[in-house]
Amino acid sequence: MLPSLPARRSLLRFAQCAHRVQARRQSTAAQPKVVFSGIQPTGIPHLGNHLGALQQWVKLQDSLGPDDTVIYSIVDLHALTMPKDAAQLRQWRTQMLASLLAVGLDPAKSTIFYQSDVPAHSELMWLLSCHASVGYLSRMTQWKSKMDVSNDSSVDSTAVRKKLKLGLFSYPVLQAADILVHRATHVPVGDDQRQHLEFARELAVGFNANVLRAPVLVKPETLFSPARRVMSLEDPAKKMSKSQGSDLSRIYITDSEEEIRHKIVKARTDSVPGVSHDTEARPAVSNLVEIMWHLGGAASVDDVVHQCRDLDMKAFKSKVADTMVEHLAPIRSRYLGYMDRPDRLREIAEHGADKARKRAGETMRQIKDAIGL
Amino acid sequence: MLPSLPARRSLLRFAQCAHRVQARRQSTAAQPKVVFSGIQPTGIPHLGNHLGALQQWVKLQDSLGPDDTVIYSIVDLHALTMPKDAAQLRQWRTQMLASLLAVGLDPAKSTIFYQSDVPAHSELMWLLSCHASVGYLSRMTQWKSKMDVSNDSSVDSTAVRKKLKLGLFSYPVLQAADILVHRATHVPVGDDQRQHLEFARELAVGFNANVLRAPVLVKPETLFSPARRVMSLEDPAKKMSKSQGSDLSRIYITDSEEEIRHKIVKARTDSVPGVSHDTEARPAVSNLVEIMWHLGGAASVDDVVHQCRDLDMKAFKSKVADTMVEHLAPIRSRYLGYMDRPDRLREIAEHGADKARKRAGETMRQIKDAIGL
Repeated sequence: MLPSLPARRSLLRFAQCAHRVQARRQSTAAQPKVVFSGIQPTGIPHLGNHLGALQQWVKLQDSLGPDDTVIYSIVDLHALTMPKDAAQLRQWRTQMLASLLAVGLDPAKSTIFYQSDVPAHSELMWLLSCHASVGYLSRMTQWKSKMDVSNDSSVDSTAVRKKLKLGLFSYPVLQAADILVHRATHVPVGDDQRQHLEFARELAVGFNANVLRAPVLVKPETLFSPARRVMSLEDPAKKMSKSQGSDLSRIYITDSEEEIRHKIVKARTDSVPGVSHDTEARPAVSNLVEIMWHLGGAASVDDVVHQCRDLDMKAFKSKVADTMVEHLAPIRSRYLGYMDRPDRLREIAEHGADKARKRAGETMRQIKDAIGL
Repeated sequence: MLPSLPARRSLLRFAQCAHRVQARRQSTAAQPKVVFSGIQPTGIPHLGNHLGALQQWVKLQDSLGPDDTVIYSIVDLHALTMPKDAAQLRQWRTQMLASLLAVGLDPAKSTIFYQSDVPAHSELMWLLSCHASVGYLSRMTQWKSKMDVSNDSSVDSTAVRKKLKLGLFSYPVLQAADILVHRATHVPVGDDQRQHLEFARELAVGFNANVLRAPVLVKPETLFSPARRVMSLEDPAKKMSKSQGSDLSRIYITDSEEEIRHKIVKARTDSVPGVSHDTEARPAVSNLVEIMWHLGGAASVDDVVHQCRDLDMKAFKSKVADTMVEHLAPIRSRYLGYMDRPDRLREIAEHGADKARKRAGETMRQIKDAIGL
């Protein structure tokens, strides 16, 4: 599948998003914004992660004012809902932290931390659990898709009963706790998390009204990220993914120039002469055009097409690779720099965890006061 | 219902329990015992709580050696699985702490703490959740009895879906975390918790084998408390309970002499002459005989009957009241002393929480190391 919205609409949408945040900041100067988002520790991000989420995270960090708060968590507790090898998880956490810093997240501007370093996430999860409906959770679709059962499967069906773990079933409550414990006002999420964010919003309102009897929790607003889906270089019908396709199907943000050029030479295209953007007829070429647009700073897809329209496929690929190398080389360099300094990474993680614990601790204190603990 | 075992067997059973702990302590001097148990913050305990659990807790505390560890938690997070008024919960927590101290638990010998002061309980609960089976939990009987639905109810039945909260459904996992985070070797529990303790034992084994791949968690042994069921003074077919019957149906461990004498004068008996022990034919009188036995230090029920057999009901009741007053007066006095010193109570709770956090923190460090966090 290709991006659900044409590229131009996508640009407009992000501009609107940023504008809305900006406008709200000005109109309610007394109410600073708190942006929260999380990413699983999947190791080094590929271009899909980078353009789909991380670039927006950096833009949000850099566009908000001095009174606003930006919080990004590497949600390692969520990673445990599916079995993980310990050594790999340890490596992936570190790689993700170094990557977040390499793409431009700045510990001086954003609170960046590992979820498992802040016990208040688990603490609030339990408190919310006492109010969260099992019926509502059983209607959620994510645990079903992760278990590979149909959307009308029930908790009591034999296939589900045998395999379903409580963690996978209940993780939307942990996700709600992640957001609510930091009193986030705005949460950038992808389409697949829309249902969970709505659940978190309802939990916040219900918990305030029925349990706390005070407006302690903040009902967060959803910031839908622009639809920037990057497709596999091998199969433009599939999203670029770490878990599907060969290494040739994806560009990691830390790939060397040699790796990038090799993967782009091997990338699938088509035999239509010249370069155009037509996601139906030319999905592979259109994917490369969109990547160039997002990475190279052209004003629109049309601009990219205009620049490249007369190139043959070899020259076009070379230009795509040039753009990628230009964009990713400094990221790679910063990444390697961080990976060479594990003490500095630990220091940054501890600094982020301190800030996150302080903020979450304040929320927990208010909640515990309100419920009599 | 009356005690499921005749009183004599009950005594034997407790002695065997204590003996087993003692014997194990001697035979495996290198492996100190760790006793853990929890009680919900229900305010001032009544005689049923006192004889059914707290007296045994004190005996365990006083019978274990210097290398052993005794940990008792006021499990206020579990209290939240059913709706609670905040002011009442706050008061009940304090009253329970003062009561535990009044009956003889000693902060110098036992770790006594509020569960909500130790985030590691919630943290470990999440980690265990990722391994705990939803199917297993849905077969548990406790959530069904608390929801007042039949034991063959499923999570997907309409009545359940409408009302069941995740907290009530998943609390056996929190209970397992309570035990496992302290690496308890022995857990005194009542009959109603047998199923949950078995669940905790299986979780410990499965989590070590499949997730940690190391024997970090300790599989706890069950210490079944002697069956000391104290029945309502108004209706000997029902257990003494805080939530059922009038105030005349129960003796609180802090009742004044006047309150005790009044309640015992009003207590139901029968019109059979003299005093005997026959739980079928004379349940109310037998209940008083058993209370006398447990409180007064007679060697057996028969001894109590022997001492009282020729008394008329008025004289017998007077003797029962004397025994209660004698046993409970010092408890009442200590309780009132603690309630007059809220700062001291807070200090004790903080001291206990510090010890518990240290112990639980060590377990969490080992677990996080093993799973790659």
